[in-house]
Order: sequence, then C-alpha cells, then structure tokens
Amino acid sequence: MDKVNIGIIGFGTVGVGVIKALKEKSVFLQKKAGVKIRVKKICDINLRRRRDVNVNKRLLTKDPNQILQDPDIGIVVELVGGIHPAKEIIINALNNKKHVVTANKALLAQEGKDIFKAAEKNGMDIYFGASVAGGVPIIKALRESLVANRIDAIFGIVNGTSNYILTEMSREGYSFSKALQEAKKHGYAEKRPSLDIKGVDSAHKLVLLALLGFGKFVKMEDIYIEGILDISDSDIKYAKEFGYRVKLLAIAKAEKGELEVRVHPTLLSKEHLLSNVSGVYNAVYVHGDMIGSVLFYGRGAGRNPAASAVVADIVDLARNLKLNAAGRVPPYSKSIPIKKIKEIDEIESRYYIRFSAVDVPGVLAKISGILGRYGISIASVAQKERKQARIVPIVMMTHEAREKSMRKALAEIDRLSAIKRKSVAIRVER
Amino acid sequence: MDKVNIGIIGFGTVGVGVIKALKEKSVFLQKKAGVKIRVKKICDINLRRRRDVNVNKRLLTKDPNQILQDPDIGIVVELVGGIHPAKEIIINALNNKKHVVTANKALLAQEGKDIFKAAEKNGMDIYFGASVAGGVPIIKALRESLVANRIDAIFGIVNGTSNYILTEMSREGYSFSKALQEAKKHGYAEKRPSLDIKGVDSAHKLVLLALLGFGKFVKMEDIYIEGILDISDSDIKYAKEFGYRVKLLAIAKAEKGELEVRVHPTLLSKEHLLSNVSGVYNAVYVHGDMIGSVLFYGRGAGRNPAASAVVADIVDLARNLKLNAAGRVPPYSKSIPIKKIKEIDEIESRYYIRFSAVDVPGVLAKISGILGRYGISIASVAQKERKQARIVPIVMMTHEAREKSMRKALAEIDRLSAIKRKSVAIRVER
Repeated sequence: MDKVNIGIIGFGTVGVGVIKALKEKSVFLQKKAGVKIRVKKICDINLRRRRDVNVNKRLLTKDPNQILQDPDIGIVVELVGGIHPAKEIIINALNNKKHVVTANKALLAQEGKDIFKAAEKNGMDIYFGASVAGGVPIIKALRESLVANRIDAIFGIVNGTSNYILTEMSREGYSFSKALQEAKKHGYAEKRPSLDIKGVDSAHKLVLLALLGFGKFVKMEDIYIEGILDISDSDIKYAKEFGYRVKLLAIAKAEKGELEVRVHPTLLSKEHLLSNVSGVYNAVYVHGDMIGSVLFYGRGAGRNPAASAVVADIVDLARNLKLNAAGRVPPYSKSIPIKKIKEIDEIESRYYIRFSAVDVPGVLAKISGILGRYGISIASVAQKERKQARIVPIVMMTHEAREKSMRKALAEIDRLSAIKRKSVAIRVER
Repeated sequence: MDKVNIGIIGFGTVGVGVIKALKEKSVFLQKKAGVKIRVKKICDINLRRRRDVNVNKRLLTKDPNQILQDPDIGIVVELVGGIHPAKEIIINALNNKKHVVTANKALLAQEGKDIFKAAEKNGMDIYFGASVAGGVPIIKALRESLVANRIDAIFGIVNGTSNYILTEMSREGYSFSKALQEAKKHGYAEKRPSLDIKGVDSAHKLVLLALLGFGKFVKMEDIYIEGILDISDSDIKYAKEFGYRVKLLAIAKAEKGELEVRVHPTLLSKEHLLSNVSGVYNAVYVHGDMIGSVLFYGRGAGRNPAASAVVADIVDLARNLKLNAAGRVPPYSKSIPIKKIKEIDEIESRYYIRFSAVDVPGVLAKISGILGRYGISIASVAQKERKQARIVPIVMMTHEAREKSMRKALAEIDRLSAIKRKSVAIRVER
C-alpha cells in the first residue's frame, strides 16, 4: 500500500494547521514517511467559515458518516473537541476498522476506558501525541523511547495559560486578575478560562501521562486538584525572596505500588529548570530507573505545534498501514503495578506557609509550638512588612511533613485569636 | 515471530547495562514490546573481566562470527566502540541481513557514509539512539516525532565532561585545570579527555544531529571546532557580570540552503534554559517551522542512560521484525536541500571580547575606531580591575557582526602597542 487515505473530522484551528501541512508539504512528507498521505474527506458542521487554507470543495462534507463509512479511509483524525459527539465519532471509527488520531485530552481523560476498549476489541490503534504539551513528543517518548524504564515520577507544567499568568505575576508584579486580563488580551486565555486556571486541564493531561508512565487509568476524581486562583502576588514575592518561583504542576509519583496524582501550585527553586519555563511554554520531567531525569520542553498549545504532533501521529499510523503493522506499539502497559492511589492527606511534602498575624512575638511561639506538636519542623522563617493595619505576614518554609499533619496544624493555628486570616500553604518540590 | 534473537558484540560498561536490563526486566519488556527479546550470544575479546551481571557461560564467545553468521540472530548490537573493528562488524552484520543497533557516534560521524550505504543496499535498519545525549530521545524525535517540520536550527550541550568543567568553573571560580582535575576525580573526565574538551566529541554528535535534522552528511572537516581549553576563569566571571554563562555548544543552522555547523564556547543569557543545564547533563534545542522551539534534556552519558536508549532501539527493531516491517522509518531524509556549508568566516554572531590593554583611555578610542571601521558596533563595555601590573582587562559585548570582520578587526587591534595579549572573542547565542 503506497497511499493511505485519511479523513479529518473537525475543521477548526488545529484542523486547518494539519491540512495546510499535509497539503503544502505533501512531497516532503511522502519522502520522509515513505508513503503518500491523501486527505480524502474533511468534515465540519460549519463549511462556510473562512479558513486559512484552500481545499477542493468536493473534499468537504457535513456528514461524518461519509468518512466513518468510507472503506477506503484507513485513518480518522478527530479534531472536533469536547466529549460529544467526539466520543461517538471515535468509537464509530474504531468499530469501522479505522485507526484514530485525536488531540482530545478531555475526552480521553474522561471517557478513555471506553475508547481504549473499543480500540482493543477492533485491533485498531489510537494515537494522541498532541494531547499533552502540544508538539512536544512526550507521549511518544513515554510509549517508545523510555520503554526500558520503570518510571517513578512524571511532573511538569502542562497548562500554558496558567503558566503565562504566573510568569506575568512574577515578572511584572501583577495581581492574579491583572495577569489574567493580560493573558486574555494576548490570546493566551480563553474567555472562560476556568478549566485552565482551576487546574482541570492539567489534570486531564495528568491522566494521560500517568496512563503511559504507570499503565494505570486514573479517574479524574482521584486527582487532587488546586488551581492558581488563590495565588496572591505577595506569595509570589515572598517565595522569590526565599529563592523560589511558583508554578502550577501536574505531578504523578509512584512508590511501593502507591501512586500519587495531584495538580497544584508549587514552589520550585529558581535554579530548577521548571522555574525557568516561562510564558505559554510547557515542560515535563520524567524520572526512570535507567535514564534518570529527562525533560521535554516546548510550546504547549497553538495551531502549528499541535498540528506538528497530529501529523507525526498520522505518519506513524500510515507507516504501519503501509507495512500491515497495525498494533505495533501497544497503547499503554503496566510499568509498576499500582495497588492504590494515595489520598492527598497521605502525601509528604515540604511547604511554604504564610500566616497573617497580629502580636507577632507571642504568636510565633504558639505557631511553632503547634507545628512542633504535629512533627513539622521549620527550615526558615521571615517576618514581612505589614500591609494592613496591625496584620503582619509571617512566612515559613518547612522541612518534609505529612499533608495530614500540616492540615491539622493549620486548622489549629487558624483558630488562634492572633491569626486574622486563613493561612496559606503551598507545596514545595525539589 | 514472537521471539527475536539478538547478539551483542562488546561486553563493556554499556553492554553490561543492556544485558542487565534485558535479563532483569525480561517479562516487563516482553509485555511492553509485544515480543520476546532473547540474548543469544555475547561477544567480547576479554571474557575474564569481572562484570556486574551474571550470564550463562554458554552465551559468551570471543568470536564475532558466531553472532554475525548465526542465521537465527536478527539484531546485532555493536558496543565495541572505536573505528576498527567496529566498522567491519557493523558492515558484516548488515551484509548478513541483520539489523544493527550502535551507540558509536565517532564511527558514524567518520564512516557513516559506508555504513548507511551498506544498510541501504541490504535493506537493513541501523539505529543509533544512544549516540547523542545518552538516553535522551533526541534521535528518535528528529526521525519521527518532528517529521512534519522543516528544521532550521539544532543546538545544544552534547558533551557532559565539558559542561561539568564549565559548571565548576562558574560555580566555584575554579581555573580550567583545577576544574578538569575535579572532573577526573569524580569520574566525569577520562584520563585523556582531549576528544571531550577539544570539542571533537561534540562535533561527532553534531554530524548525526545535522544528518537527521537536515538530511545532510556533514564531514568532520567541514565543522568549525573550538574547545574549552582557552576559556579562562576571568572570562566566565566577566560574562557572569554581563548576565551570561559560558557553555560549549554544538550548533547547526540552515538558512536559504546554506548550513552552518560549528562547535565552540558560547555565551548564553542566564535566563536561557541552556544556561541552567549544569554538570554532566546535556540538552538540545530544535527549532522547526511548525513546532517552534523544543528542548530535550537529560544525562548525556553513563551506563544506564545509554543502555536505556540501546534497549529502546532493540525494542523498536524487534517490533519491526515481529511484524515484518523492516525499513519502517528511513534512516534520514532531506528536510531543506543544503547547497553549501558555510565557512566560519561567513557566519554572523554577537561577540563577547576581552582586550588586555595598558593606557586605557587612549586605547579604548582606538579599539572602537577599528571596530567601527569593520562595521562592528558595541553594545556595552566595561573596564575591569587590573590583575597584573599595568594590564587592564576591557570587556565588550557587540551587536551582530560578521565573523570575518571580527577576525580582521581583532588582528588589527592586537597589533596596537597598548594591547599586551591576544584578545579573546567568544560568540554569543540568543
């Protein structure tokens, strides 16, 4: 088979990028792929929108069945987004013996079980290289390049919008809302950015990273999620004074068969490579038993980076089709058997804590007393300039402590009469 | 075919790592690879050395032909190193219709043409994922994940020994020779480290990166190579004062069909991710037309990282063998047609320059006059404390200038009577 026909469903931003690349680089790609890739049909509910690419009108259709039921089409590219009808489209394609490429992380994170089951039942491949960190080949690296490794940790910055906001807050001293406004102005935040800033998008991606890294399909509700809405410019400033930056991290770590999966703002030393990932860029660390630490970095979103990953997946599958080598790489497999997913209370971490206190000398003794009783030891402490009448911020870095103890200690501290606001705690990663 | 037999030639450090992994993880790997990988023979000239892995004595041989001529062996792993007999072993394996995995960058850089020709003639694959940046999957990313991109730049830190030395010089204020001594003490530099510190090892890797990025087989003699022997602790200190760090970079850039390939110490802003790559770590940037900038980072050497990459290659080829899909990914292909390789004189760069002058006020006017006549404009200048009687270092950062002009200007400046030592120029990357 020297020619592979594909159908693309969803002619939006990424769809345009994919079609432009396949069209403008067809000779180049044929040489590199060793097979000709032909777009046979493009489906979208809106065919009238102006798009940044010219396509032959006969390729266009509003009816996905023209793709799903075409026996000549070997690969279906789903770029519709959302859960429905994307899920039905993909399952239908798999049932019709078509391999699938998708960039739909929300769908895979929420409905992946059904989708992977349909792929397995039909002996079809499903590739999703564009679903995490845009064009950065972290998915393929986990599936193929790191195959010899038992992975024990994956963590990184996988949401460009949040990272842009945190970068602006840190660089310009902006408040969260001012930075969000800037992000919207520059097109880095959607009108309704809640999935991004609440950490849900990062959690979607974490489901996929954990699946590939540990072979465990984590449910969204098993992920502890904290967004960046409560990060104040003061915390960013104080963290900086301790030599740290604040980043929204997605973290999956396995130890002795127990997995922790969490998304939250995190302090990282300013020497840490992730601290130096700015703006809309993404970066993911993977730690494996043989390779040690590796990091993958690049633009996490945007038409062309996403299209770069989608086209790479199409080429991969086209090569398989040409050689009759479907199923060449299993979608995921167990690395370390995971017996349990940890509750957030069970994790251990270092913490940055900010207390809002009056009567500092007295309260400091009480705070350290309470922390001490919960086995939390203080690494450093600093009293900051007062911002409001009588309320003085006290900032601490702790040594490693159990989350549960930290929560209990903070609850007790917050009941002190000298503590005037809910205390803030941010986890610290090495 | 559910079982693939491999033969390993070279039972040294990396060989032990590979065999340990294949042995201790055989069930794990079989599940992940979808095929059983069996080490049928291991060849080395020294079978008596104590090694960190137990193997059945019947697997061992001193005779490579027991592997090369065994019709049951589908993949030959060459881990002998050096040029001869590694080259003959590989070509022999290819001629005997065996796929080959190697980590031998020096061999591929110098004799790659013959080797790739033999692979092509025999329809065999040759994989070399461990040859650049240890376990970091930069080779596979260039061959597969970035397939949709026209690459225009690849640059990075690809020699751990040099990077360790430069990091120690920067962090501890060591001289070059003191840092080299430290590197030897910690096992990060060989006894005779000249290939590393003179930039030759980086150039070997650059040949492979350029081959995969641009489809052009660059000859070693076409690469401009400068090592780190002449980097002084003062230059590192002054660069730091300007906000820069010094790294040994391998750089390949293509523009309008012209390729520049060079290895030299380079100033990078301390905000640059590559500036924050410390110790023996490696990191490579790739810039493509769709993906923008991506970076790959990890340990550049060591038994286990290298073995991680070798095993990934073995698994890749075993999957192909199982499915009868040899040649699935062509070894390399042209991205941008390269018509010409630039001489170093033709490149443009910003520069850091250090002059050793007496009579500063007078000489500064003369220096700027000469630079101006060659079209080189100064971005900033600083006069440093004198270190020796009467000789004062003057340090400059220039704007973009042509290398040829810079060389001529420096030659003219060095002839001034007030200039007491050869001036130092280090290129600056963005």
